[in-house]
Amino acid sequence: MTKRPMEILDQALNRQPVIVSLKGKREIRGILQGYDVHMNLVLDRAEEETGGEVRKLGTLIVRGDNVIYISPLVG
Amino acid sequence: MTKRPMEILDQALNRQPVIVSLKGKREIRGILQGYDVHMNLVLDRAEEETGGEVRKLGTLIVRGDNVIYISPLVG
Amino acid sequence: MTKRPMEILDQALNRQPVIVSLKGKREIRGILQGYDVHMNLVLDRAEEETGGEVRKLGTLIVRGDNVIYISPLVG
Amino acid sequence: MTKRPMEILDQALNRQPVIVSLKGKREIRGILQGYDVHMNLVLDRAEEETGGEVRKLGTLIVRGDNVIYISPLVG
Amino acid sequence: MTKRPMEILDQALNRQPVIVSLKGKREIRGILQGYDVHMNLVLDRAEEETGGEVRKLGTLIVRGDNVIYISPLVG
Amino acid sequence: MTKRPMEILDQALNRQPVIVSLKGKREIRGILQGYDVHMNLVLDRAEEETGGEVRKLGTLIVRGDNVIYISPLVG
Amino acid sequence: MTKRPMEILDQALNRQPVIVSLKGKREIRGILQGYDVHMNLVLDRAEEETGGEVRKLGTLIVRGDNVIYISPLVG
Repeated sequence: MTKRPMEILDQALNRQPVIVSLKGKREIRGILQGYDVHMNLVLDRAEEETGGEVRKLGTLIVRGDNVIYISPLVG
Repeated sequence: MTKRPMEILDQALNRQPVIVSLKGKREIRGILQGYDVHMNLVLDRAEEETGGEVRKLGTLIVRGDNVIYISPLVG
Repeated sequence: MTKRPMEILDQALNRQPVIVSLKGKREIRGILQGYDVHMNLVLDRAEEETGGEVRKLGTLIVRGDNVIYISPLVG
Repeated sequence: MTKRPMEILDQALNRQPVIVSLKGKREIRGILQGYDVHMNLVLDRAEEETGGEVRKLGTLIVRGDNVIYISPLVG
Repeated sequence: MTKRPMEILDQALNRQPVIVSLKGKREIRGILQGYDVHMNLVLDRAEEETGGEVRKLGTLIVRGDNVIYISPLVG
Repeated sequence: MTKRPMEILDQALNRQPVIVSLKGKREIRGILQGYDVHMNLVLDRAEEETGGEVRKLGTLIVRGDNVIYISPLVG
Repeated sequence: MTKRPMEILDQALNRQPVIVSLKGKREIRGILQGYDVHMNLVLDRAEEETGGEVRKLGTLIVRGDNVIYISPLVG
C-alpha cells in the first residue's frame, strides 16, 4: 500500500495537531485547516516555540517553500 | 470545513494588523491592503521591529518569496 | 544495466527503512510509503536524530527540495 | 479598497525616494524610474548605506529576486 | 571536439567510481548507475566521507540540485 | 519618464565601466559588452576587488542569478 | 559590437583554460569542452584549488547553477 504526500495532508485536515518543521530550525504546531499544491498551509490554533517560549499565533498561513516536513501528531 | 491559504488572506484584507514573519529572522506588522498569486503583499501602516526598536515604514510591498508565515492578529 | 532515480524509490517502497539526508545537516529514517515527482516523500515510523537524541515522528511528509540523498538501508 | 503590489510601484514612479530592503541586510534608497514583472527595479540617484557610510551609486538596476521589501518614503 | 554534459555522464555509467561534490562541503563517491534530466543520480556502493570517517551507504539517490560537480575518477 | 531595467543595460553597452554587485559581498567592474534575458552579463576588462587586492580577469561571463545590482559608473 | 554570453563560451571551447568561480568561494580551472543552456559545463584537465592545495580532477561536469562567473584565461 503506497500513499501520495497530498493524501497524508488530506487525512490530517481538521484533526489532531500537526508539527510543521521549517527551514532555519523553526517549528510550528497547529490544526491543519487547508493546503494548496505548493504546500502552502493554513493552520489554526498555531503555536511557535522559540527559545523555550511558546508564542500563540492563532490562524496562520505558512508559505510552502519553507516547509521541511509535516508530521501529524500521534494522539 | 477546509480553507485555502488565499481565503485567509482575503478575510484579513483591510482589517486588524497581520504579522508577516520573514526569512532572516525579520518580522513586519501592518494592515494587509492587497496581495497577488506570488504572495507579494501590500501592507499599510507597516512597522518592522529590529533589535528592540520599531521602524515605521508606512506603505510597503513585501516580495512573496521572503515570507515564512502570515498571521492575522487576534484582537 | 542503468537505473533511473525513481526506480530505486519504487523498489524501496514499504520495505526496509531508508535514510533521508536533508539540508542543514538533518537526517531522518523511516519506511518509505510514497513519493511524487518532486521527490516529496511519505515516511512511516519516521525518526529524526538531533544532537544524539532520537525523536519519534510517526508518519511524515518530507518536502522534496530539502532532500540531499535517499539511501535504502542494507539489512 | 484593495491594492495590488504593482499599483504601489506605479504610484511611486518618479516621485519621492523609495527604500529598497535587500537580502543580506543591505538597503538602497533612490527614485524609482522603472520596474518589470520580476520586480527588477531602475533607481535613480541611488545610495547604499553600508557600515554607516553612504555610497552614491547614481543609476542602478536592482535584480528583483534580492528584494525583501520596497517602501515609498513618506515626505 | 565538444562534449555535452550529459554525454560525460553516459560514458561514466557502470564504470569506475565518480566523485560527486555537493553543496555544504559534502562529497560522495560511488558507481554511477543512472541519472535523469535534473541531474538526479543513482550511485551504487556509495560512500560519504565526513570528518575523516567513511560512511558506507550502498545504493543512493542524490537529488540533482545539491550537486556542484561530478568527476569520473581516473583509474 | 519611466525606464525598463533592460533599457539601462542597453544604454551602458560598450561605454564607461559598470559596477556589478554580487551575492556573497563580491563586486566586479568592467565594460558591459552584452547581456541576455536572465541578466547573464559579458564584461570586458573586468576586475574583481577582493580583500583590498584587485584581480584582473579580462573577459568575463557573469551568471545573472548572482547579480544584486548593476550600476553604470558616472564618469 | 555587443556579445551574448553564450558566444563567449563558444569562443573559449577547447582553447586556453577557463577560470570558473563557484558559490561558496570555490574556484576551478580547466579546458572548456562543452556546455548547455543551463550553463552546465564540461571541463577537461580540471583542477580545484582548496586551501592552497591543488586537486587534480580530470574531466568534470559542473552544474550551472553554482557558477558565479567564467573567465577565459588570457595567455
